[in-house]
Amino acid sequence: MKLKTTIAVAVLCAATSLTPVINAPILSGAALAASQKTGPQVTSFTLDNGLQVVVIPDRRAPVVTHMVWYKAGSADEPRGASGIAHYLEHLMFKGTKTVKSGEFSAKIAAIGGQENAFTSTDYTAYFQRITPEALEEMMRLEADRMENLVLTQEKILPERDVVNEERNARTENNPGSLLREAMNAALYQNHSYGIPIIGWKHEVNALTKDDAIAFYDKFYTPNNAVLVVAGDVDAETVKVLAEKTYGKVKRRAEPGERMRTKEPEPRAARRVEMSDARVRTPSFSRSYLVPSYYSNDTNEAEAFDVLSEILGGGTTSRIYRQLVVEDKVASSAGAWYQGGSLDETQFGFYGSPRNGKTLPEVEAATDKVIAKLLKDGVTEAEVKRAQKRLVRSSIFTQDSQSTLARIYGGSMTLGSTIESIQSWPDRINEITVEDVNSVARKYLKLKRSVTGYLKPETAAHKNEG
Amino acid sequence: MKLKTTIAVAVLCAATSLTPVINAPILSGAALAASQKTGPQVTSFTLDNGLQVVVIPDRRAPVVTHMVWYKAGSADEPRGASGIAHYLEHLMFKGTKTVKSGEFSAKIAAIGGQENAFTSTDYTAYFQRITPEALEEMMRLEADRMENLVLTQEKILPERDVVNEERNARTENNPGSLLREAMNAALYQNHSYGIPIIGWKHEVNALTKDDAIAFYDKFYTPNNAVLVVAGDVDAETVKVLAEKTYGKVKRRAEPGERMRTKEPEPRAARRVEMSDARVRTPSFSRSYLVPSYYSNDTNEAEAFDVLSEILGGGTTSRIYRQLVVEDKVASSAGAWYQGGSLDETQFGFYGSPRNGKTLPEVEAATDKVIAKLLKDGVTEAEVKRAQKRLVRSSIFTQDSQSTLARIYGGSMTLGSTIESIQSWPDRINEITVEDVNSVARKYLKLKRSVTGYLKPETAAHKNEG
Repeated sequence: MKLKTTIAVAVLCAATSLTPVINAPILSGAALAASQKTGPQVTSFTLDNGLQVVVIPDRRAPVVTHMVWYKAGSADEPRGASGIAHYLEHLMFKGTKTVKSGEFSAKIAAIGGQENAFTSTDYTAYFQRITPEALEEMMRLEADRMENLVLTQEKILPERDVVNEERNARTENNPGSLLREAMNAALYQNHSYGIPIIGWKHEVNALTKDDAIAFYDKFYTPNNAVLVVAGDVDAETVKVLAEKTYGKVKRRAEPGERMRTKEPEPRAARRVEMSDARVRTPSFSRSYLVPSYYSNDTNEAEAFDVLSEILGGGTTSRIYRQLVVEDKVASSAGAWYQGGSLDETQFGFYGSPRNGKTLPEVEAATDKVIAKLLKDGVTEAEVKRAQKRLVRSSIFTQDSQSTLARIYGGSMTLGSTIESIQSWPDRINEITVEDVNSVARKYLKLKRSVTGYLKPETAAHKNEG
Repeated sequence: MKLKTTIAVAVLCAATSLTPVINAPILSGAALAASQKTGPQVTSFTLDNGLQVVVIPDRRAPVVTHMVWYKAGSADEPRGASGIAHYLEHLMFKGTKTVKSGEFSAKIAAIGGQENAFTSTDYTAYFQRITPEALEEMMRLEADRMENLVLTQEKILPERDVVNEERNARTENNPGSLLREAMNAALYQNHSYGIPIIGWKHEVNALTKDDAIAFYDKFYTPNNAVLVVAGDVDAETVKVLAEKTYGKVKRRAEPGERMRTKEPEPRAARRVEMSDARVRTPSFSRSYLVPSYYSNDTNEAEAFDVLSEILGGGTTSRIYRQLVVEDKVASSAGAWYQGGSLDETQFGFYGSPRNGKTLPEVEAATDKVIAKLLKDGVTEAEVKRAQKRLVRSSIFTQDSQSTLARIYGGSMTLGSTIESIQSWPDRINEITVEDVNSVARKYLKLKRSVTGYLKPETAAHKNEG
């Protein structure tokens, strides 16, 4: 299950001086839920300026998780300015009218807090872990930078170097990331999900102060944000503090409905192949364009979560059993579904050949699993077991305060409701064998897909490269 | 050479009631030139409102070619409104404040004229062939619709159906076009050249009157246009008439520099495969991302024109000889270069297998030709012969008035000058063996390419499709 996260998650985190880079969890259905019966009493209200506030009480320890989510990610960037959402995330630490550059992080450190920030295709979020006593100060600071950010040329340029270095470390020096970038670009023919969150190198290099300010002025406004406070607090206190702090922030803009271009009907199977001397283990991957939890109003996303569990959920899954256990062509293999994006998303397969086996053999074995699935469908027992595993894992997520805060924050930023998040286990349990077979047959078509091969560089490939 | 045109040209023509749809010629270097020594005395001037006028005297017959070129093509469209440039081209025949819908074309027919219009990635042009006596009336009519277009809901909707039908006829019912669309989308990861000129079907269906008016108001202004008058006229007369007609059109907007996103450095070879029951002859194609005449200031485009001639110019070319004559794997094969686009363009190969031969065999034979080229380079004799053929063909183009008008109009719309167009043969003749080898080795790398397979549908593919 861990591998799913590292492959599928498309989230960039700001590395501050205080916290290591962490990976955000998948905000997919697999982690969406907190059953109403057993979970926390989550409440929500909206301030006069449009800021939506979500409170998740968790009294087990004197700790509070404070997050602000903006409905603005890389897919909302203007064309040609890719990377500006992530760059702005970095610049948000560069000071306001009253707080000097770096002081924000220093204050959090002083009160023993932890912080991070991350940018995705659909949102940008700022996160802190603090003691309950520090919450008001935290809210004051975060509200301050929602409207008072001050950007100067001296702050802008060095931070652009930092972002460039981040791109070098994450992508340029990582053949797997470069291939994933190329696969995304090939899969999405018209939608901005084909553009990397961190931005194309040449465009990041050309980002300006004006680009950052324009993005900030357009999207960083209370009516375009969701505040999540989880932990040792009650809703009443949060409300009083929120009105005292965030309540004073002006409604600065009207971003309106999120305008995204749609994908055309896919017509042709695509393949992307990369050879690189730095590759140690060859790998195969395949992604299909499929609906997300937010891209249509059906239960197809729930069905895909069940299918993902059946095909790729651990060592009892169809893919693992066929490729690793039975055919012995792969040393690792699986399937994943990234349901938590606003627009059409990906259902994916991956595998690495065992010693002596080849990428085409891994691909052929995967195709065999898919062909059998499309022909014979899944079984009642498989669906039941997948449902159990999914619902159980959603209950486990309630154990982590920050995971819960991320799930509610991410989902509500994309337009979900508390009720919908909490009813996810019920909706998963309603999925039938027919629902699963139907989405598989409707969407797992080669023409909807991109296939990637990552290979160690050989002399022959060097000439071709 | 004809096949080059049908594969490479990306131009849509409006089918009016008066003229058949015709194909615009490649505006590549191969057809760019008219040697100053032997060619017409072309002159150019600019009206006060910014309209650039080009006059190409040709007294052989009492015929005049009149063209207006707008610096606005599909690559200038706003995201999500693909197809609007072409749709507006259609709507330009729907009447103005003083000329009723259809009257424009009726008037041209009445004076015995011919007309057409076409949309490309980088421009939209309107073309008429008339007698010299009708020139003033023609200019009055064309100037009128430069600023006085009247669009109503009743005109808009039926014409959108016409455009949709055009997409159905050209693309939806043509597997080769669908594959080319998918290949373009895969080759261009960030640039609008990845979006079809005619527009994605779902976006064309959603185009509105406001989209058309916004595009018209932004780009259809004299300072964003080039007028070409070729034929039985002199520059003085054209100047007087132009001032009398176009001179009265207000400078309606300032489109400014053309903003295009740039491609990232390509990292991974891409492949696109399509199977369709309507395919009779399988075909292989490969395109590399390379510079155009306008995308950089080097002589690389000239070198690519020479290389294209060596690899793909007719039956003595390397590709044809190797694939069709020697290896006998292909029934047809060639190479092409589309130099005349504003931004990075394509250098392409194609081939169809002979009976009993396969697409991978055609591809392998093509790769053998490319590998040999990269290893051993071209010869002095090949370069000399290619130069002779290119320059000779550029002299032939002077024989056609409308071709000359298209060459000057297209080139100057993209920013070229009369001097540059006329010195093209000299620049071609300066290309050396090293220049050709250098561009081949710099750009013909698999990671810069997309490879396409178009296959007849088989039962197996049906399941996959």
